[in-house]
Amino acid sequence: MKILADICVTPLTGKTSVREEIALAVGILRETGLPVRLHAYGTNIEGDFDVVMAALKRVHEALHENGVPRISTTMRLGSRIDKDQTLDDKVGVVERLLDESG
Amino acid sequence: MKILADICVTPLTGKTSVREEIALAVGILRETGLPVRLHAYGTNIEGDFDVVMAALKRVHEALHENGVPRISTTMRLGSRIDKDQTLDDKVGVVERLLDESG
Amino acid sequence: MKILADICVTPLTGKTSVREEIALAVGILRETGLPVRLHAYGTNIEGDFDVVMAALKRVHEALHENGVPRISTTMRLGSRIDKDQTLDDKVGVVERLLDESG
Amino acid sequence: MKILADICVTPLTGKTSVREEIALAVGILRETGLPVRLHAYGTNIEGDFDVVMAALKRVHEALHENGVPRISTTMRLGSRIDKDQTLDDKVGVVERLLDESG
Repeated sequence: MKILADICVTPLTGKTSVREEIALAVGILRETGLPVRLHAYGTNIEGDFDVVMAALKRVHEALHENGVPRISTTMRLGSRIDKDQTLDDKVGVVERLLDESG
Repeated sequence: MKILADICVTPLTGKTSVREEIALAVGILRETGLPVRLHAYGTNIEGDFDVVMAALKRVHEALHENGVPRISTTMRLGSRIDKDQTLDDKVGVVERLLDESG
Repeated sequence: MKILADICVTPLTGKTSVREEIALAVGILRETGLPVRLHAYGTNIEGDFDVVMAALKRVHEALHENGVPRISTTMRLGSRIDKDQTLDDKVGVVERLLDESG
Repeated sequence: MKILADICVTPLTGKTSVREEIALAVGILRETGLPVRLHAYGTNIEGDFDVVMAALKRVHEALHENGVPRISTTMRLGSRIDKDQTLDDKVGVVERLLDESG
């Protein structure tokens, strides 16, 4: 089952800067070879449900192994059977409508 | 890896009442035998990452098989290595603090 | 505009136990007098959009005043014009369907 | 209070294509004049808490006025007092770390 997902990993470390932990997480998501797009409050990823979830599990495991005691992740995930859609499609159709109306 | 998760499944069905789809989803989560708690904007579940995610996948598949063309799910999931914690623990510690301060 | 909302506040404090911060947050939400239900991964609240958001703003402000340098909140919020629905309605209709099918 | 937020509006209409509703929502967020970045599963926005929330309220109101009976929105929002940070900062620091490690 193919999904589009948006993942935001929040490591609860002993510090407020978590950029290194986020870079580690994004790096693991990229290792899947799936399309991955970073934004300011999460990361879009597109691919098979099992592959995405296995990568997310590796993210939690790797952060714990790097000393992060607690992690809270939020995720949006969508699947559809009426048509195939990519990350770029989703952004594109809305941007075209905004251009037309703007 | 054990997680506490909170899952909110939004079926895009073409009607505004989605209670039957939600009941189907919660029923599938309960079939795991894991602790499951329904609230007004989602469902808490506690257990192994792979078991929770396999159940979530079955939810999407079952809804699609029942004619739902599109599903958008949001999920919070937490893991920790500093101590073991259950769904009931999490609610209990906060409620005790509120009782003391109230 | 009336909304049903589910709010999960994650204080990034430098420690992994955040129960006191969560209790403070839930206490502020309760001060609204609106229906508030705590669960293991967030808090349901039901009421006017502006009242709920003003309370959420006070939560962030109070946590910052208590020394929390950084806060990440996730929120689900729903509004509808086809009928009026309460937090208890939402849980009740799904539980009745589960009872019937079980 | 300044926040970085990520907003995903899900209109429950009688159809599975909701691109026009999403474009309407993004257009209203842009009318604030605040930095707004569209991605495949939501929209980043940066600005004053009250301004962002007032815009989100107008989004729900406008969609209801356009016939959408029910809307479910998910939102992440972060505030911090240890330093000022923009949407572009957040993406930039992670991308630089990824470039260095890659």
